[in-house]
Amino acid sequence: MTSDEIKTAILDMGRKARAASRELVKLSTDQKNTILCAMADGVVARQEAILEANAKDLAQAESNGLSKAMIDRLMLNPKRLEAIAEALREVAALPDPVGEQLAEWTRPNGLHIQKVRVPIGVIGIIFESRPNVTSDAASLCFKTSNATILRGGSEAIHSNNALAEALQSGGAKAGLPANSIQLIPFTDRSSVVHMAQMDQFIDLIIPRGGKGLIEKVVSTARMPVIKHYDGVCHVYVHPDADLDMAASIVINSKCQKPGVCNALESLLVHRDVAAAFYPKVGAGLLEAGVEMRADDEALAHLPPSAKHATEADWTTEYLDLILSIKTVGGVDEAIDHVNAYGSHHTDSVITRDAAVARHFMHNVDSAVVLWNASTRFNDGGEFGFGAEIGISTDKLHARGPMGLAELTSYKYLVFGEGQTRQ
Amino acid sequence: MTSDEIKTAILDMGRKARAASRELVKLSTDQKNTILCAMADGVVARQEAILEANAKDLAQAESNGLSKAMIDRLMLNPKRLEAIAEALREVAALPDPVGEQLAEWTRPNGLHIQKVRVPIGVIGIIFESRPNVTSDAASLCFKTSNATILRGGSEAIHSNNALAEALQSGGAKAGLPANSIQLIPFTDRSSVVHMAQMDQFIDLIIPRGGKGLIEKVVSTARMPVIKHYDGVCHVYVHPDADLDMAASIVINSKCQKPGVCNALESLLVHRDVAAAFYPKVGAGLLEAGVEMRADDEALAHLPPSAKHATEADWTTEYLDLILSIKTVGGVDEAIDHVNAYGSHHTDSVITRDAAVARHFMHNVDSAVVLWNASTRFNDGGEFGFGAEIGISTDKLHARGPMGLAELTSYKYLVFGEGQTRQ
Repeated sequence: MTSDEIKTAILDMGRKARAASRELVKLSTDQKNTILCAMADGVVARQEAILEANAKDLAQAESNGLSKAMIDRLMLNPKRLEAIAEALREVAALPDPVGEQLAEWTRPNGLHIQKVRVPIGVIGIIFESRPNVTSDAASLCFKTSNATILRGGSEAIHSNNALAEALQSGGAKAGLPANSIQLIPFTDRSSVVHMAQMDQFIDLIIPRGGKGLIEKVVSTARMPVIKHYDGVCHVYVHPDADLDMAASIVINSKCQKPGVCNALESLLVHRDVAAAFYPKVGAGLLEAGVEMRADDEALAHLPPSAKHATEADWTTEYLDLILSIKTVGGVDEAIDHVNAYGSHHTDSVITRDAAVARHFMHNVDSAVVLWNASTRFNDGGEFGFGAEIGISTDKLHARGPMGLAELTSYKYLVFGEGQTRQ
Repeated sequence: MTSDEIKTAILDMGRKARAASRELVKLSTDQKNTILCAMADGVVARQEAILEANAKDLAQAESNGLSKAMIDRLMLNPKRLEAIAEALREVAALPDPVGEQLAEWTRPNGLHIQKVRVPIGVIGIIFESRPNVTSDAASLCFKTSNATILRGGSEAIHSNNALAEALQSGGAKAGLPANSIQLIPFTDRSSVVHMAQMDQFIDLIIPRGGKGLIEKVVSTARMPVIKHYDGVCHVYVHPDADLDMAASIVINSKCQKPGVCNALESLLVHRDVAAAFYPKVGAGLLEAGVEMRADDEALAHLPPSAKHATEADWTTEYLDLILSIKTVGGVDEAIDHVNAYGSHHTDSVITRDAAVARHFMHNVDSAVVLWNASTRFNDGGEFGFGAEIGISTDKLHARGPMGLAELTSYKYLVFGEGQTRQ
């Protein structure tokens, strides 16, 4: 197919998604939950077809020489499919934010105004490799009465197609409106651009993947894009901190799951506590296999394996067992460093002093700022949102963990009795 | 200056605005209000310089042959400057949304989470002709602790510069942080593109102007853009409506101020009430000097001066004393028409039946939907917001009238006692 033919096909999908979004607002919460459970049944019923499709992707991945880690991300099996079905049932069990009244007031002229949550409309999701995103993203968007257009990576195209068909056919049995969940069948790169330009039919695009993918979407999109960029997360240790607590939080933030955006990447320690804290935390980090990259003042107190940090280390998201370490002269220097070198994602202060903590939390310009807690808590599940579409690094619409509420917009209902404006 | 030199200068302004935004979060509400009043004093004190600058713009406008209406928009005089100063004092008197707690909860592990309003950071405002936007936009952004980069039209460059200087020098006397309010001194068109690409320093751009300007920003911007597009607003008259009320609302919506986005552009009338309603509303519209463009069914009952509507009329924002008129077979046909041809801005239903009203308000996908009230009430002032930066036609972050709260973001504060993630 030519790029123009792909564009025409994608515009047609957009038109159908917009029409579906008008039907979705008519569904009650009960109807939506029944459909979600029917989608789960659809995944179970189509297990064989999905695994066959997945086998094609896996064979392709091996012949393309993809890494073991990549192949594992791609791989589906009966257990993983059961987890996908179970996740759908869990989304059914979550409270529905649509229709929630956000505010209500009456004006002196008698007009009564209600601000209520409504669906966004049509959401485009562009993602890479992991086929379970097909089901995760579609179910969260559907629960909030949004139509979705999904565009997965070429490496998982057969699996994604089979999963989307399972959701559609399962859901249809319980009344899922046609075209509520569509998957773009083209792996051509131009399809991302056509989606990103189609602002008459797509209200929001969420790219879920690496920096390159997000960049491509941001530079071409005409509609809002919610970005999930890097997490260059910090812990700052103030001199009065409980040093055992500080070491435990640093090691947990760094090591509990190093490959994720809310893992710690950079440790800041006050000069006055360097001699007491660095040997303690250094021993723990060494034991956990963490490579330390530190400034001169820290190196004097860290295990001999610690390396010299370069300027690039202060802005690097390692996503690995590597930690940059810097000595600072006070909380304000820590704040300035975090604001200048961090990614405004997640930063934690360890202190006994509430005033110091408040000062850090007020002035650090990040989505989530913590006091005496691990950076790993910036997470929809840990926040109690029940589900998470990602962790936004944007400041508009959604910041930090995005749950169902962040997949909604609002409208104003105005109740009058014939009022006109003078 | 070359485009590259302009780019360098604008990047430098961006860097300074980001630094200013770090200082702005440190100001208390009282400090901000004192500064706003000092800005008002600055405008009064510099009246002579501002009027001199304005005279240059006016002379240029006349020699360029601008229309009377355009020249009136551009013109400043002592009375208008006093209104600008008074508006600054009114912004000082408004409640400060920054710091407001939006939600608070405690997790089973003891983590306490607060969601609080914070500034967005740096806001870019790109606007045309009317110099008072310099002061309006800067004051609302400052009240919410945001730094602003303003870019006005070339036709008002001297007035805008003089006003910005008055705000800066007046504010500085009361502690306005340097570079909190910057005005781009270049009228070169490339400066808009450089702003729109500078997402490392600008968090949000709000274009205030015509469709061409908004389009240009949307197609180049890398950061979120809040758009204030057209209002193709509807009133739908159901058969059970109080027809005197319906006529009064139609005429008010159309005629009270026809040149604005919340004015009525398209009237939908149920077939069953055509014979009773069209003569009544037609007489009123005729008297008010409104040109009617209607379908055949309506033309049979409207004054003979009414014209035949074409397909283009259903999507046209006239901003003038012109109204398109269509006969429909029921509320669902009205809803489908509004969703297909309208601009999702403001739509009103006139009926005595609460179920019909609820059905219309639920299914019409617009920022503001009204029951038995004029479309002209979609307005920040009429909503009681105290101030308005515009009426957003977007669905993300801000929809409908934008007050101070819509110029804020939020962050999460997480209070722990050493919690780590298992």
